[in-house]
Amino acid sequence: MAGRGNRQRRAAAGKAWEGRFREKTNRLVEAFTGSVGVDGRMYAEDIQGSIAHCKTLRKAGVLSAADTTAIVRGLEAVQTELDRGRFRFLPEDEDIHMAIERRLTEMIGPVGGKLHTGRSRNDQVALDIRLYLRSHLGHLQEALQEFQRVLVAKAKANRTVVMPGYTHLQRAQPILFAHHLLAYVDMIARDRSRLEDAYARLNVMPLGSGALAGTNYPIDRRYTAGLLGFPAVTTNSLDAVSDRDFMIEVAAALSIVMMHLSRLSEELIVWSSQEFRFVDLPDGFCTGSSMMPQKKNPDVPELIRGKTGRVYGQLMNLLTTLKALPLSYNRDLQEDKPALFDALETVMSSVRVMAELMRRLKMNREVLEEAVRKGHLLATELADYLVARGVPFREAHAVTGRIVRSAVDSKRELSDFSLEEFRTFSDRIEKGVFTRLSVPAAIDRKAQVGGTARVRVEQRIRELERSL
Amino acid sequence: MAGRGNRQRRAAAGKAWEGRFREKTNRLVEAFTGSVGVDGRMYAEDIQGSIAHCKTLRKAGVLSAADTTAIVRGLEAVQTELDRGRFRFLPEDEDIHMAIERRLTEMIGPVGGKLHTGRSRNDQVALDIRLYLRSHLGHLQEALQEFQRVLVAKAKANRTVVMPGYTHLQRAQPILFAHHLLAYVDMIARDRSRLEDAYARLNVMPLGSGALAGTNYPIDRRYTAGLLGFPAVTTNSLDAVSDRDFMIEVAAALSIVMMHLSRLSEELIVWSSQEFRFVDLPDGFCTGSSMMPQKKNPDVPELIRGKTGRVYGQLMNLLTTLKALPLSYNRDLQEDKPALFDALETVMSSVRVMAELMRRLKMNREVLEEAVRKGHLLATELADYLVARGVPFREAHAVTGRIVRSAVDSKRELSDFSLEEFRTFSDRIEKGVFTRLSVPAAIDRKAQVGGTARVRVEQRIRELERSL
Amino acid sequence: MAGRGNRQRRAAAGKAWEGRFREKTNRLVEAFTGSVGVDGRMYAEDIQGSIAHCKTLRKAGVLSAADTTAIVRGLEAVQTELDRGRFRFLPEDEDIHMAIERRLTEMIGPVGGKLHTGRSRNDQVALDIRLYLRSHLGHLQEALQEFQRVLVAKAKANRTVVMPGYTHLQRAQPILFAHHLLAYVDMIARDRSRLEDAYARLNVMPLGSGALAGTNYPIDRRYTAGLLGFPAVTTNSLDAVSDRDFMIEVAAALSIVMMHLSRLSEELIVWSSQEFRFVDLPDGFCTGSSMMPQKKNPDVPELIRGKTGRVYGQLMNLLTTLKALPLSYNRDLQEDKPALFDALETVMSSVRVMAELMRRLKMNREVLEEAVRKGHLLATELADYLVARGVPFREAHAVTGRIVRSAVDSKRELSDFSLEEFRTFSDRIEKGVFTRLSVPAAIDRKAQVGGTARVRVEQRIRELERSL
Amino acid sequence: MAGRGNRQRRAAAGKAWEGRFREKTNRLVEAFTGSVGVDGRMYAEDIQGSIAHCKTLRKAGVLSAADTTAIVRGLEAVQTELDRGRFRFLPEDEDIHMAIERRLTEMIGPVGGKLHTGRSRNDQVALDIRLYLRSHLGHLQEALQEFQRVLVAKAKANRTVVMPGYTHLQRAQPILFAHHLLAYVDMIARDRSRLEDAYARLNVMPLGSGALAGTNYPIDRRYTAGLLGFPAVTTNSLDAVSDRDFMIEVAAALSIVMMHLSRLSEELIVWSSQEFRFVDLPDGFCTGSSMMPQKKNPDVPELIRGKTGRVYGQLMNLLTTLKALPLSYNRDLQEDKPALFDALETVMSSVRVMAELMRRLKMNREVLEEAVRKGHLLATELADYLVARGVPFREAHAVTGRIVRSAVDSKRELSDFSLEEFRTFSDRIEKGVFTRLSVPAAIDRKAQVGGTARVRVEQRIRELERSL
Repeated sequence: MAGRGNRQRRAAAGKAWEGRFREKTNRLVEAFTGSVGVDGRMYAEDIQGSIAHCKTLRKAGVLSAADTTAIVRGLEAVQTELDRGRFRFLPEDEDIHMAIERRLTEMIGPVGGKLHTGRSRNDQVALDIRLYLRSHLGHLQEALQEFQRVLVAKAKANRTVVMPGYTHLQRAQPILFAHHLLAYVDMIARDRSRLEDAYARLNVMPLGSGALAGTNYPIDRRYTAGLLGFPAVTTNSLDAVSDRDFMIEVAAALSIVMMHLSRLSEELIVWSSQEFRFVDLPDGFCTGSSMMPQKKNPDVPELIRGKTGRVYGQLMNLLTTLKALPLSYNRDLQEDKPALFDALETVMSSVRVMAELMRRLKMNREVLEEAVRKGHLLATELADYLVARGVPFREAHAVTGRIVRSAVDSKRELSDFSLEEFRTFSDRIEKGVFTRLSVPAAIDRKAQVGGTARVRVEQRIRELERSL
Repeated sequence: MAGRGNRQRRAAAGKAWEGRFREKTNRLVEAFTGSVGVDGRMYAEDIQGSIAHCKTLRKAGVLSAADTTAIVRGLEAVQTELDRGRFRFLPEDEDIHMAIERRLTEMIGPVGGKLHTGRSRNDQVALDIRLYLRSHLGHLQEALQEFQRVLVAKAKANRTVVMPGYTHLQRAQPILFAHHLLAYVDMIARDRSRLEDAYARLNVMPLGSGALAGTNYPIDRRYTAGLLGFPAVTTNSLDAVSDRDFMIEVAAALSIVMMHLSRLSEELIVWSSQEFRFVDLPDGFCTGSSMMPQKKNPDVPELIRGKTGRVYGQLMNLLTTLKALPLSYNRDLQEDKPALFDALETVMSSVRVMAELMRRLKMNREVLEEAVRKGHLLATELADYLVARGVPFREAHAVTGRIVRSAVDSKRELSDFSLEEFRTFSDRIEKGVFTRLSVPAAIDRKAQVGGTARVRVEQRIRELERSL
Repeated sequence: MAGRGNRQRRAAAGKAWEGRFREKTNRLVEAFTGSVGVDGRMYAEDIQGSIAHCKTLRKAGVLSAADTTAIVRGLEAVQTELDRGRFRFLPEDEDIHMAIERRLTEMIGPVGGKLHTGRSRNDQVALDIRLYLRSHLGHLQEALQEFQRVLVAKAKANRTVVMPGYTHLQRAQPILFAHHLLAYVDMIARDRSRLEDAYARLNVMPLGSGALAGTNYPIDRRYTAGLLGFPAVTTNSLDAVSDRDFMIEVAAALSIVMMHLSRLSEELIVWSSQEFRFVDLPDGFCTGSSMMPQKKNPDVPELIRGKTGRVYGQLMNLLTTLKALPLSYNRDLQEDKPALFDALETVMSSVRVMAELMRRLKMNREVLEEAVRKGHLLATELADYLVARGVPFREAHAVTGRIVRSAVDSKRELSDFSLEEFRTFSDRIEKGVFTRLSVPAAIDRKAQVGGTARVRVEQRIRELERSL
Repeated sequence: MAGRGNRQRRAAAGKAWEGRFREKTNRLVEAFTGSVGVDGRMYAEDIQGSIAHCKTLRKAGVLSAADTTAIVRGLEAVQTELDRGRFRFLPEDEDIHMAIERRLTEMIGPVGGKLHTGRSRNDQVALDIRLYLRSHLGHLQEALQEFQRVLVAKAKANRTVVMPGYTHLQRAQPILFAHHLLAYVDMIARDRSRLEDAYARLNVMPLGSGALAGTNYPIDRRYTAGLLGFPAVTTNSLDAVSDRDFMIEVAAALSIVMMHLSRLSEELIVWSSQEFRFVDLPDGFCTGSSMMPQKKNPDVPELIRGKTGRVYGQLMNLLTTLKALPLSYNRDLQEDKPALFDALETVMSSVRVMAELMRRLKMNREVLEEAVRKGHLLATELADYLVARGVPFREAHAVTGRIVRSAVDSKRELSDFSLEEFRTFSDRIEKGVFTRLSVPAAIDRKAQVGGTARVRVEQRIRELERSL
């Protein structure tokens, strides 16, 4: 019996599948193909899934009660080792799945070899990634929601601050700074909605698909799903082991999150330039120059903007990897995890840092107010005034355009014009025009849903406060 | 008054915004920035949106009943010209919006200049793209559903055909060909689900956001939404004119569709090789060689596989374009339409052609059956037999591995072994092993949800027939 | 004999390879696979290559002198039809190669069928693309050189204009505006160098590779190369028909060109904002708003920035398409041309428009000079002054940092400090510091190769004038 | 004085630029922006560059001989610590540059603070990356050359092995297996050429560009270049600190290398399928299945194929990051190194593993020979036979096509036809046709440069043996 145990241990120290092979794995290949460094971070999910699998085998009568208990306790012991950083990986541990089974068998003997009954690494890893994503997408949702809350609080605290609204980075019309911030709240809301949809699509239990064709054991897959909190099971075993749609979908949703952050980052960088001076970034979010003593650089938004490429790159990575792969599982798929994990971490840390930055951002109210006064931002008001006086919009636009040209030429603003001057352009202009050419009036007139009027923005803040 | 009309016409022949400008647009620039060649295909949506806008202005009392009637009739007349290919674009027509307004004013006079009251091209184009996408995503959904129906029908017609299931392009376990086809039905189901989610997120009405800040007119945006069949309106005007999330989301969903088609294409190409001979592609879907008279090439799946890169590229195009754009509208966004339209058309035609190809595909049943018999596809059955005889799975796997190695060395299949030979590897093997080593038995034992067992696959076909 | 002619014409009207086929090409498939719309623009190169092939066959004794003359004249006649827009494409013309051969045979009878002797479309198209690229890369090189000349001329004309140099979009040190422009000249120089290297690698003649294995005829491939001006022939037929490296390499080089243009575009957009006002874009390169009469938008740089994604996308398209294609030719490769042609045209027009824009750009010298005075741009000078007085750089940097903080707190510039104030920070500071704190001195001290000193920049302008 | 030393040490323990700042760097931000984990691998290059900088300052009289000696020895001591893994990074070490300077100053006191005189991290990191790339591209060139040698040796050892040449994955014409392998040698030759060109373009010395504008010290940049083995110096300081072209160019060249490896991988995977059986992968390069005991999977080529997406993704990452960055340095650029380093390592390990795999690959000669005999691979020979008998090629092609169709219908090969049967298709066919329909004859007739004829391939092998 001792010999048996030894043999078992030797087998455990080799590859689980080496029966059919004559040569050992080449050492160069072992390093090239090993994935513990990446998939090791899914160890808790792997053990969680194994315990559910074990219980499912028990329910189906495949495992005895004693074996089940031994395996579950063994897995828990392995988890403890991993939690405490005391697990020692071996070079021949191909991946986290094999490492855990190897250690389990070292601990509880040959019965450990029963765990993998009716299961393949193909369905096992499909399960692990889904469990891992469920948990990490949950954290990301919280971080995104917190970011929204920060933006809404910031908007509320600055709800009387006006600023120039831009198109083409040219001053366009006066808006509330709060309205600008709330645009990002809407973007993040869509991000969250996309991630929720992705979550729902990936929240389906693949175990029981075997290597590709299903399993030979009369297990109840819905029971496993229930143990792990999945509302549904996959409906095609081939698809279940080769499907990585959900990872691409998540990577695409993450790319859009980063795109949004990159837009905000760009604005923060532009706004904190000496030319704009709209905002002051907190010192603790900037760094200086090793050479130029006066520099205070907006490193955090720059880095976030830069990390956008990183997440886009991982999306392209995943799409390329999946292109033209025949069914079902192919080893190419091992490259899915480094891509997605890196994207997830990049987005998570970027969202958190950006939220902290926005929480501490200081607006330069006077600079913003001054900026609104320069650049003919009320030209549209003038055109609409003319429309109200019966001029077709297109003609009103043309007349106003000529007035603005004259103002540009004489380096003046519209508010500098006298009534007489206005009337040289159109005799429809009367004294009332001056009450129209006011920033608060211009803002408040945009009072339809989604407009920048104060009442609208305040109402929207209240709505968001309730829903977040 | 005639002079007035002339002036109006001259203005119409120039740029709508030229009042403020001193120089004409440079001709090189006119060609570089013009977009009628691309956005022209949204003319029907543009007119549909303009009519709704016009009615909304009427409801708000901004337009008189007479003006409204004149404009709506004018727009309908312009549409007729466009429908009939009789509309003449001018070099100075910057885009389809301006071309239509220009023609409208030519037809109905200065009142045409009232149409653009309270509107900007920024919210107008945001509306047009959403209308366009609603319609084209609808067509795509139908094409995808039809493709699913073709696959289910093919599966049903071939439901007794067996084939080798593959992992790593190595024969793995016997499966039903129908089971393989149904994997694609599940993939397409997820594609449809993703496109539905994207549709729901884009099905929000942006008009009334103006250039960026909202509109000065007391219009009822929900009324416009109702006229155009939108269930909701956008809630932030800055976001509404700068948001292209929905285009990226659609492009990402389309990329995954193409990824699925590329996987099927790869399989068809491999399967129609002389080495596999699993299928015969219909002659009408292949082409020959200009040099080699014997060639019959799987051009259609090859082209679809090739077009995958095209759609991926457009996704990357859109993501790059949006990166780090400050709010709100920037002209960079004009590049969104060529990207998305090309992606949509590529996917639409690929899905349709692939559906036709699959409808006519012929399976070589004998070749498939022969293939199942070679390659030790029943090794897992043997391992599971040993498990049933009390051997822990890991040991059963190792024993079976050694049997397979012996079979490979002696160029035999497992079915060629005698009981005595089997028992030299394990004394747990008994006569019953032979009933286990049968292809139909191996298939039918995988009878859990998602497995390849005949009853399961037939049940799944019935489910799909009902739901499609 | 009449019957023979008729049969021949019928064959010509069908597919060149239809002998082996039983069914006609499906109409849907014909539309899906046809490429004349794209490869039609290579007709001149196709005919040029065919004439060279024909002469090579003649030299090898494969064609008679009479046949050669008939074919060459026929091809010239076809070219005339194409040049004049009088060539009528048929739905069954698969591609430009088949269309030209079809028309040739219509014109000169069965002898036209001899042209394709010893050739395949696989090596023919490989030749055509290379010829096409040689010509278009030549045009692009000229456009890039002209762009460099414009930048150098602009630098020379503005060689006394100073501006703030930026890092992190924060004012860093004073520089010459000319120095800034010359940075782009260096970038474009690298672009040209990359395109030259790509040109050299693609300037290799593939004809004679046949479909994949070479040709059965004793042709002299170097003779063909000589006729077409290629310095070398490809050395492996399989590689020659499946190689698209050169297209990816060109697309990558084009992507970097666009990246450079996107950086300049970003600067122009930022510089023409009301906050920076560093430059005035010419009216003819801007457009207005349909709604806001005052707007003058930097559309051209915005569109160029936006088109960057388009070229990146085509690079990704080509890379994806080529991934994992087995040797040799596969139909996927048909997708290469729309990708590369689009990238080429986008870059060509962007370079040309940008050159015109830069030619007309107006710098606001006073604004730039004012900008240099604000923002402590001379802090590094002060630190280096301390170093010259014996303070280790790191300490000098720290001292200067504290002075700048004090200046920021008191809203002053360094030039506003008295000697006494300076000395409260370091007793190494003496009167001489004030001569050091001068913009021209700061600029001129950076006199090493590559520095912004006036003498350096003027010397560099002269060097570039000579070399361009 | 002791107090001074303490202050100095405290400063060293803080940030080098903190003089101007009031707040400490936020801890979250420190973790987010720190890069030692990535740029730490450039420590040797950083120290090499610092020593050269130090000597250049000495030559310019900026540093004393004593200071120079102290700094150089200090840097060497720091390097020793790093080499031996005894260097302890601190959380506040922003990057490897600051970490080394911090440790240097700890070791040698305030004089360490003189090292950064006339230098910025902007030009320093530009130098380090170039040094790093020079060294790693050198290793990659060697690995690629070794891979070529393996392929040539394999070709030579198998130079009599025939195989079907493929287009569209359909058997096309007989070729030599050696010819197929040599196609990859040509691809790798282009890869090496591209990397050499990239190397030449990056082999330019940027130090002395300062933060962006140049340096205030009269250093001789060409002297620094000489010390570091650079043939040239950069000519524009703004460009020098913001240029990352060379990283994108290298990433693009690496992407093409991976594309080539992905094509070979695809072929190996297809060839090692049970259907093709063209090759046997060495056991040590395959792994088994955790579930299916018979599996032997081509993991190595699958993983290499999968890693293609990884390198493509990093290229897209870099391109995206650089898009629309204004001059000069921006912190986004910090993201350049993780991208490029990952791409380099992925390619390096993939090339090495693939070379080892190819070295041990076994061809199944009999299977290949059998494959050549089936599939009408000699149809082109028959068509060319007819051409030699005076039939225009297009007609010869059509006649042969009809013969092949008849062969397909009757499940025969061309060699099974009698002369009488042949003559029912064309009376130009005579007895001599049978000598033409031979595989060796078909191969040897393709004797032009680049063809598959035995003499050609053997000649090419000799050429390559000489040049590699």
